[in-house]
Amino acid sequence: METMRKLWGGAFGDESDSLVDRFGQSIESDLRFWREDVLGSIAHAQMLGRTGILASTETEAIVAGLQRILDEGPDSLPVDVEDIHTAVEVRLGELVGGVAGKLHTARSRNDQVATDTRLFLRGRIDELIPAIKSLQGALYDTARRHRSTVMPGYTHQQPAQPITLGLHQLGHFWAFQRVGRRLIHLREFVNLSPMGSAAVAGTGFPIDRDSTATALGFAAPIPNALDATSDRSFVLDALHWAASAMIDLSRVAQELVLWSGAEYGFVRLADAVTTGSSIMPQKRNPDMAELIRGRTGRAIGNWTAFAATMKALPLGYNRDTQDDKPGLFESLDLVADALGLTELMIRGADWQVERMRDAARHGFSTATDLADFLASTGMPFREAHELVGTLVKRCASGAFEPPIVAEVLHERLTKAEIDEALRRLAVERSVRQRNSLGGPGAAAIGIQLRHARKLLQRPGFASLT
Amino acid sequence: METMRKLWGGAFGDESDSLVDRFGQSIESDLRFWREDVLGSIAHAQMLGRTGILASTETEAIVAGLQRILDEGPDSLPVDVEDIHTAVEVRLGELVGGVAGKLHTARSRNDQVATDTRLFLRGRIDELIPAIKSLQGALYDTARRHRSTVMPGYTHQQPAQPITLGLHQLGHFWAFQRVGRRLIHLREFVNLSPMGSAAVAGTGFPIDRDSTATALGFAAPIPNALDATSDRSFVLDALHWAASAMIDLSRVAQELVLWSGAEYGFVRLADAVTTGSSIMPQKRNPDMAELIRGRTGRAIGNWTAFAATMKALPLGYNRDTQDDKPGLFESLDLVADALGLTELMIRGADWQVERMRDAARHGFSTATDLADFLASTGMPFREAHELVGTLVKRCASGAFEPPIVAEVLHERLTKAEIDEALRRLAVERSVRQRNSLGGPGAAAIGIQLRHARKLLQRPGFASLT
Amino acid sequence: METMRKLWGGAFGDESDSLVDRFGQSIESDLRFWREDVLGSIAHAQMLGRTGILASTETEAIVAGLQRILDEGPDSLPVDVEDIHTAVEVRLGELVGGVAGKLHTARSRNDQVATDTRLFLRGRIDELIPAIKSLQGALYDTARRHRSTVMPGYTHQQPAQPITLGLHQLGHFWAFQRVGRRLIHLREFVNLSPMGSAAVAGTGFPIDRDSTATALGFAAPIPNALDATSDRSFVLDALHWAASAMIDLSRVAQELVLWSGAEYGFVRLADAVTTGSSIMPQKRNPDMAELIRGRTGRAIGNWTAFAATMKALPLGYNRDTQDDKPGLFESLDLVADALGLTELMIRGADWQVERMRDAARHGFSTATDLADFLASTGMPFREAHELVGTLVKRCASGAFEPPIVAEVLHERLTKAEIDEALRRLAVERSVRQRNSLGGPGAAAIGIQLRHARKLLQRPGFASLT
Amino acid sequence: METMRKLWGGAFGDESDSLVDRFGQSIESDLRFWREDVLGSIAHAQMLGRTGILASTETEAIVAGLQRILDEGPDSLPVDVEDIHTAVEVRLGELVGGVAGKLHTARSRNDQVATDTRLFLRGRIDELIPAIKSLQGALYDTARRHRSTVMPGYTHQQPAQPITLGLHQLGHFWAFQRVGRRLIHLREFVNLSPMGSAAVAGTGFPIDRDSTATALGFAAPIPNALDATSDRSFVLDALHWAASAMIDLSRVAQELVLWSGAEYGFVRLADAVTTGSSIMPQKRNPDMAELIRGRTGRAIGNWTAFAATMKALPLGYNRDTQDDKPGLFESLDLVADALGLTELMIRGADWQVERMRDAARHGFSTATDLADFLASTGMPFREAHELVGTLVKRCASGAFEPPIVAEVLHERLTKAEIDEALRRLAVERSVRQRNSLGGPGAAAIGIQLRHARKLLQRPGFASLT
Repeated sequence: METMRKLWGGAFGDESDSLVDRFGQSIESDLRFWREDVLGSIAHAQMLGRTGILASTETEAIVAGLQRILDEGPDSLPVDVEDIHTAVEVRLGELVGGVAGKLHTARSRNDQVATDTRLFLRGRIDELIPAIKSLQGALYDTARRHRSTVMPGYTHQQPAQPITLGLHQLGHFWAFQRVGRRLIHLREFVNLSPMGSAAVAGTGFPIDRDSTATALGFAAPIPNALDATSDRSFVLDALHWAASAMIDLSRVAQELVLWSGAEYGFVRLADAVTTGSSIMPQKRNPDMAELIRGRTGRAIGNWTAFAATMKALPLGYNRDTQDDKPGLFESLDLVADALGLTELMIRGADWQVERMRDAARHGFSTATDLADFLASTGMPFREAHELVGTLVKRCASGAFEPPIVAEVLHERLTKAEIDEALRRLAVERSVRQRNSLGGPGAAAIGIQLRHARKLLQRPGFASLT
Repeated sequence: METMRKLWGGAFGDESDSLVDRFGQSIESDLRFWREDVLGSIAHAQMLGRTGILASTETEAIVAGLQRILDEGPDSLPVDVEDIHTAVEVRLGELVGGVAGKLHTARSRNDQVATDTRLFLRGRIDELIPAIKSLQGALYDTARRHRSTVMPGYTHQQPAQPITLGLHQLGHFWAFQRVGRRLIHLREFVNLSPMGSAAVAGTGFPIDRDSTATALGFAAPIPNALDATSDRSFVLDALHWAASAMIDLSRVAQELVLWSGAEYGFVRLADAVTTGSSIMPQKRNPDMAELIRGRTGRAIGNWTAFAATMKALPLGYNRDTQDDKPGLFESLDLVADALGLTELMIRGADWQVERMRDAARHGFSTATDLADFLASTGMPFREAHELVGTLVKRCASGAFEPPIVAEVLHERLTKAEIDEALRRLAVERSVRQRNSLGGPGAAAIGIQLRHARKLLQRPGFASLT
Repeated sequence: METMRKLWGGAFGDESDSLVDRFGQSIESDLRFWREDVLGSIAHAQMLGRTGILASTETEAIVAGLQRILDEGPDSLPVDVEDIHTAVEVRLGELVGGVAGKLHTARSRNDQVATDTRLFLRGRIDELIPAIKSLQGALYDTARRHRSTVMPGYTHQQPAQPITLGLHQLGHFWAFQRVGRRLIHLREFVNLSPMGSAAVAGTGFPIDRDSTATALGFAAPIPNALDATSDRSFVLDALHWAASAMIDLSRVAQELVLWSGAEYGFVRLADAVTTGSSIMPQKRNPDMAELIRGRTGRAIGNWTAFAATMKALPLGYNRDTQDDKPGLFESLDLVADALGLTELMIRGADWQVERMRDAARHGFSTATDLADFLASTGMPFREAHELVGTLVKRCASGAFEPPIVAEVLHERLTKAEIDEALRRLAVERSVRQRNSLGGPGAAAIGIQLRHARKLLQRPGFASLT
Repeated sequence: METMRKLWGGAFGDESDSLVDRFGQSIESDLRFWREDVLGSIAHAQMLGRTGILASTETEAIVAGLQRILDEGPDSLPVDVEDIHTAVEVRLGELVGGVAGKLHTARSRNDQVATDTRLFLRGRIDELIPAIKSLQGALYDTARRHRSTVMPGYTHQQPAQPITLGLHQLGHFWAFQRVGRRLIHLREFVNLSPMGSAAVAGTGFPIDRDSTATALGFAAPIPNALDATSDRSFVLDALHWAASAMIDLSRVAQELVLWSGAEYGFVRLADAVTTGSSIMPQKRNPDMAELIRGRTGRAIGNWTAFAATMKALPLGYNRDTQDDKPGLFESLDLVADALGLTELMIRGADWQVERMRDAARHGFSTATDLADFLASTGMPFREAHELVGTLVKRCASGAFEPPIVAEVLHERLTKAEIDEALRRLAVERSVRQRNSLGGPGAAAIGIQLRHARKLLQRPGFASLT
């Protein structure tokens, strides 16, 4: 890299300059929000005109130049500069001459970069909201189609009680409802305007921060100039949001990796989201799910990185905060991609209904139903639990054997009760009768589907309560 | 530890049992929320009575026993058990006999522990809200008293422009406004009821989840039983809240460590929050501030720990989630302590007003004011910036020297303009005239103080906008 | 807690003292290394005597008092004090009177706590070495017993190529060889003496740091007093060691969770390491494996916590470093427990040999063998790979069907080659012939077992090369 | 991006392909180690020739083609492919035709990527060793020049006892000695050959893994094929190394940020490593130091990210591990840059010797010397400590006042002792007489400088002991 052109002075002329320039530059990552930088400058220039700080001819020239940069796109910007603010100002100077220098009146790169970051992040939030809804739609559709498809419900990754694929898919649906709701909360923190806070202490020019805030769609100006330029807690919030979303996505991914494997065999993923092996011709690898799972680590690391960076920084602008953006971009891109890929996987999934039902039948998954029934006959639950435990040990085949069940229950129950007990052992029966709110029974799942559909149809993500 | 009494079966009888028991137990940390566990059981038992699942005499006996445990306190609970649920049930059995076993009807430890964790966390949130307000009160009071106390505003940890201690203290005030607001958001996620979700699949008993939710003050039942027992994202949210709050507290702490040191000398901390040295008789160490700064690492680590734990866990209860609590307790306690200690430090601080003003005067901190003034005479800002840079180099004393300033400006400005330029170099003048919204000027700081007081007086933490 | 007795001065007398005392104390965690503190003091006192800094009667009195504390154990130490150094000195004063005060000559709590931490950590390292060997022994024994037990080798968590349980167990064996070797490296960093560095700057007393280093078994004194009291990088090394070891243990644990589940069914864990359910009478939950997996998050978080704490601390003692110990203790205890539990799980495992072999037969896991064979006939590997891919698609049964194989290969191979191709499809044949170094073939595995046994029998962990 | 060319099959033809391709590709980061990939393939091809697996003409054609790729450089490689292995194979096919397909005999991308990563990392290690030495050289030179330059030694970031800049610079010297030594340990783990382990299970071809290991300069082949393809613990080791090194660098950086500020004023950084402000013409910002400090967070986050990724991965190749490289590259580049920049800062530093000495004189920093002297007269150290504490309170000027000192000591000491006590209060005297090993005294620092020089001159980093 050639020695950079800088806003603040000349080069130092020795060979270490290139290391210093490279280490110090942010232009490579800044280009990501070039548009936000220009839009911010337009709002600033127009305010300077409205308040009479600049003459209207000056404002017009500057705004016209900035508008032309918007039209040209980022390719016209110089890249041998330190950052995007310099790039825009240099290009503006080429376009409109010396008046370009007046754009920097009553502001600083400190409030500028905070403004750009917030505008960029708000834009990503507004794109992520429909992406979350769209994935929820896929989960909802699967849930509706498979509201009666029996599968094992797991605890300790072992079959515990029969549930339905519908209940399971809605389980994820609600996780993404929270992901969406968290994003609304995040937006509240992001959508505030630092513009006009200048370096750290505001300015003596009679600027109008309300008007730039409004022009840029911000809810309000940030009330304190020092805070406005020092605060990056909204970036850490965004990184938490992303990490948390990735963790939820990794849970879907982990299930798809396991369930598409030979041992579970619950699902066949679409060709488009599996890949082959360079050495093993038979493979159908769930690479997208593995990568989502693996890259969740990156989202976790990006939060950690920035938390460590921010710890113990005194108020005021510190150059350390320059590094908020690479991790933020990576985490946001990652969630956006992972939401899209997860939707592809869910929508293209070929659920192996028979395998799922067989797995549910296996392993005494209705043992609780039997214990519950025994308890309903008046037996203390602990006793019922022990009695069923005895039964499980006696049924060597891996499933409840009716004669053994009948024999063991003989002393404690009536004939009619025993018959009912045996009926309770069927997985479909088990699922059907679990109609407590939130359960897999037909009535309960109907309520839940209607609840979910209502939320899906409503724009945004309302309060969880 | 003796071999434990367990809900689910006998001991295995060999010497490795004690390692297994120790590794598996959670009773040590569970005791922290023994009350929540009992209150949850009371609500459950009453619902079982109301719905007729238990006879009213059974319900009465169980509730009376649980009430007695509440009165006795945690010391009556056995500790040679796996977890708090077992402890309460064992004690209940001692108090009311076999009917105790019926309490476990239509629930599981899976929904129980989720309920307990949420109740406990909600209780801590409700204690933390006034603690945040109280710290904000200390910052507000200092800001009001020192609204005109000049100090350096820093960028890159170097004096940049003069500000006031008032502006600075309000800078932190707004950070804690966000800390408070984030807590309100967190509460929305926490205050939902998993009770009645049982193991993962709800129950066939005709329970009434709305009524237990209401009895426990939850906003609503969680709509999906699998999600209710699998979700711990609210714990990660709480850990993020705590880490983020600690980072804000560490920024205050770092400033107090630096500012109480001999080189800055801006503040003398109260005796109560400093400590001596075993070897150096002269020391007044800012230990509380150092410990807050250092333990911020713990809060960061607790988030990371739990994020790593939750990654790629399939839905359903997994024992891994048992470990959500030790980190959660540590982080919440840490924030509570650090809020109190920071308030003590702020309220007891003896601000060294002269040292702060001297530091602001030093180092050309009004250079921007001069450049702004030059720009206001029609000079492009870049030129003004370069001209002031030249001046700084020529004034060898470390402060602006009026004769040199006058000489350099001679060619560009009128006599009256030069006089005004010289007036702009005073730090008090600089501060006074920065009246843009959020700045340190008298008018601007007045607006900000009124804004802050209004929020302080309002209960809770309203939207930031 | 009552107001504490302190080495450096009186109490401050107001109600905030208890919060300050509680936040500042480290005595709770310090008690863990009370013995090291006393042993360090004995070495220091003896050196003070040898060098004539103390009179021999003084030394004798002090050493006798310290020896008595060693005999009494920690219960005799006061706990209403700030830290272990104070506790020992207070108790020593009770035992030997005013001369106790002379023990603190030529040292500081700064070098003392660094010494204690290093002694404690060295002791744990020396206990962990045999624990690692012991787990390796269990893996080795299983590997030897199951050197021919066929199972699937997985890539992308899908059956890829047949391997043996022997190869798999040795795979973990080598991971723990690295865990052990890393511990030897760690010990090199730990086993250096800070004693005599005093606060940060050494002392003017004519002490003999070599002799205290030797007395305490350290390899050498740390060459720089400022570094000796500032450095905690060995703690971060230890936390990395622990996290890395837990990650290796979590990989074993994850396999045991999956493999003990109904879908894989590869192993039945011993009763002692599984637990039941309070609600589901049939459950055998792999709780120990889940907890190891989950707590790996804690070990990761402890590293992160301390890395964040240490970042950007200037040289010199900072109180922030007090917090190195709780995380260190937790991580070391965790690895020790997890090593023991993993050994229990491996030694008690009942391997389901038939299930493993069936899984290997399933899913075309010998496809690569066929492709390799085709390549050995002169076909470019890419072509062979595509041809086998075609075959896989045509065999609808999920396994290679000889007639289809023969038909497809007909045009490209001779009859004898086709016969050989069919033989290559057997999993036992596949495993047997993979005799490249490190493979599962009988010859290769024999070499590997001998290599492993040789290392097991050698004390410690030699270089990996 | 166009649909990619893949080793394992065709495209899927729908619009989601591009997301899948983009998410799955690693070619962008892989290009970083294109050379290692080609060198590995040459070694593999030559071994296939030597063992007769390929005909010598085939080997020659392949090796000639690969050699040509080495000569052409990476620009000739296609980038519309999934990864570097595919890129090289595609290009090789263009150069040598169908025989290129035979290169993949007896290997897999799984052992290939592990080999490439190890070769790349080893190369970086070998470049980092002299960079560490070079920084140590700068610290050593400063230490030698400033062996008598008095400055404050800090505890709790407050002046504690006088030291010298020489002692301080050597304090960092030893930290980097550990950084170097840790790198030697890392190299031992890295420098082992996975080549020939194929997918996970070795191969039936009669390959010679020893010979490829030797050809590539590896110390030995990894003994287990499953382990060789599953293990990434050496990557986590490398990330720990980098994070730990950055933490040490951040400690230097933090001091330089503080010390170059107006309040400390201990050092003036060279122009080349400071930057100006776009708004404040007077600023000289220590940006390089701030960026090193801030980016230490990135190195911490990269460790955390990969630890979370690796947790609970079963043995066998998992696609999750693809993500080891971006973090590894970032962390290694960061350390390399930060070492160079820190050296630039140290070598160009203009130490403000007067400011440092004044700071040491201030604040009773010789209080310990006085207490030590009192102890040497026979007073128990605790009493001496309290007496000096009293003195500090009585000297209101902020420094010891001889008349007050004399008066207070009058009752306890002889006249000659009092005179000596007063001499002990001079900072130069304090420093001169601290000649315990590792202290700042002339004799002690001489020993330490000779020790350091000896290590500097020795190649590599020998054991710390």
